Amino acid sequence: MEITIKTLAAELNLSIATVSRALQDSHEVADKTKRRVLEMAGKLNYHPNPYASSLRKQKSKTIAVIIPEIANNFFSFALKGIQKVVEKEGYNFLVYLTEEDLEKEIAITKQLQSGRVDGIIIALSSQTDSVSHLWDLHNMKIPMVFFDRVCDQIDASKVYTNNFESAMNATSHLIENGCKKIGYFQLSNKLSLAERRMSGYKAALETHQIAFDEGLVLTCGTNVEENYQRIKGLISEKTLDGIFASVEALTITSYDVCKGLGLSIPRDMKIVSFSNLATAHLLSPPLTTINQPAFEMGMEAASLLFRNLTKYNAYPVVEKAEFKSVLMARESSVEVRPLP
Amino acid sequence: MEITIKTLAAELNLSIATVSRALQDSHEVADKTKRRVLEMAGKLNYHPNPYASSLRKQKSKTIAVIIPEIANNFFSFALKGIQKVVEKEGYNFLVYLTEEDLEKEIAITKQLQSGRVDGIIIALSSQTDSVSHLWDLHNMKIPMVFFDRVCDQIDASKVYTNNFESAMNATSHLIENGCKKIGYFQLSNKLSLAERRMSGYKAALETHQIAFDEGLVLTCGTNVEENYQRIKGLISEKTLDGIFASVEALTITSYDVCKGLGLSIPRDMKIVSFSNLATAHLLSPPLTTINQPAFEMGMEAASLLFRNLTKYNAYPVVEKAEFKSVLMARESSVEVRPLP
Repeated sequence: MEITIKTLAAELNLSIATVSRALQDSHEVADKTKRRVLEMAGKLNYHPNPYASSLRKQKSKTIAVIIPEIANNFFSFALKGIQKVVEKEGYNFLVYLTEEDLEKEIAITKQLQSGRVDGIIIALSSQTDSVSHLWDLHNMKIPMVFFDRVCDQIDASKVYTNNFESAMNATSHLIENGCKKIGYFQLSNKLSLAERRMSGYKAALETHQIAFDEGLVLTCGTNVEENYQRIKGLISEKTLDGIFASVEALTITSYDVCKGLGLSIPRDMKIVSFSNLATAHLLSPPLTTINQPAFEMGMEAASLLFRNLTKYNAYPVVEKAEFKSVLMARESSVEVRPLP
Repeated sequence: MEITIKTLAAELNLSIATVSRALQDSHEVADKTKRRVLEMAGKLNYHPNPYASSLRKQKSKTIAVIIPEIANNFFSFALKGIQKVVEKEGYNFLVYLTEEDLEKEIAITKQLQSGRVDGIIIALSSQTDSVSHLWDLHNMKIPMVFFDRVCDQIDASKVYTNNFESAMNATSHLIENGCKKIGYFQLSNKLSLAERRMSGYKAALETHQIAFDEGLVLTCGTNVEENYQRIKGLISEKTLDGIFASVEALTITSYDVCKGLGLSIPRDMKIVSFSNLATAHLLSPPLTTINQPAFEMGMEAASLLFRNLTKYNAYPVVEKAEFKSVLMARESSVEVRPLP
């Protein structure tokens, strides 16, 4: 038996018009109803209208990867993971860089609405605090996977790490190594990832009965010289004894500032950073990092996307994959040289 | 007056068939004749046949960037430069990674013959010792710019650095700092870039009356563990006192090997590397680098490509741009700490 909108309507005891609107994600239909319709569509293996079918056949065999930044080991390793899967599937990928700029991100997504790609993997820019451009893509049913810097509001497949736990571990690690005034340096306070890391930072302080001081949190931009001055200002003013950096780039600047101020790492300042720097163990001193499994995450994001490309019917296949980051303790945060 | 193949033939005193074949880059026409025809075509502003014209109008507004590797600061900064120009022109770029594999490079170029991109920027893989796949693209008149790892055989636009001079300076720098047995570590001996760097290395040795020893040259692959063992073997066997590395990745491995062998840099081993590592000045010890102006080179490559995309008539607009690299002397190659 062929499953049509009529079948769905009968099964659900809804009007054909409502089912049709629900499948088009119309704002005239309540979310709860949409969910019921999509669930039934999935259960009965309903295929959408022939127009959509023909669109599906016109595959560009290309996916878009939208990332904020490329001179960053996390994203470059992730791209390698994505490539590995994309190649196996006989696809290509277009790389789009937002350079941490919401306007650019919006322009890119607008352009992708033309359907030039079959699917999208996206890590949000640090400035993305409005997501209507992503809703547009989602409503057009362009398969999309959120990667690392995910969007909480949209129910699509997501790949991310245990940000709360990682930030809590890193902060606890600094406290256990003697730090009392730990600065938290981030690029964004707009992303859900930023919230989770901040919560982890706060939770560790609370566990160790250290009062949270908003003044120790620094939200930086992408201008290196400006970041240098702001980090320098905060370290001097607040006499920090520890730094927890959410981004690799801010750690490099922090090392530079400490050198400039004549502060010895780790004696005067202990540092932990989210980072996939290939040279972390060769820095002076070696940097304690929270390593995210970038390559594996890239592979997983691409795999989740391809599951949507092959199974994409009336609704997205939504899967979430949480990876664990690993704290690699090195000399930047512990005074005694660890055994090799 | 409309310029036709007939006009060209009359001006050149050649048959129409010969001019036509020359414009199609046929092997039946001598290179010298082809050059004469193309020069005259340029001089008279000849436009090729309507079929080619209509093809020209069907722009994909996309260019391909083929690079060997992305987790490498040189290529990631270059991509940023390419992006800057590509964005300004309202284009996109597809990134293809060959992972230093000739087979992959051939597969990618085959695919691009379908015309899915308007032009190509390519840095050859370290294994590329045959270029017939590139001739195919060139003969199809797909605009192509060679970047950094250029192809000598094909007369297209090229962007590169003063490799001979840079390698000579780097080697001289090591000799002037007391080195007598300098290992030269490279990824390839197949590229013209490799030849030039090797010639620079040899020239510096000769100037300083040090005999060239083939046994001090190491040509590595992409397997990190294998490279580690081979570098370790060579350092021990040949009692090297200096390393000149052609690639950033081999330098990181060299630092690791020296640590493993208990060799102090720079006391026991001095190191200079081609590298755009953002952390070079923070390594232990800070790394002496030959910095290539990656961002500017990327911008130039894209600009040269766009000159071909807009002016592309019967022949490519061939321009060459040589950039100068800069030697940044740091502690890895000089024993006295330089003033900040």
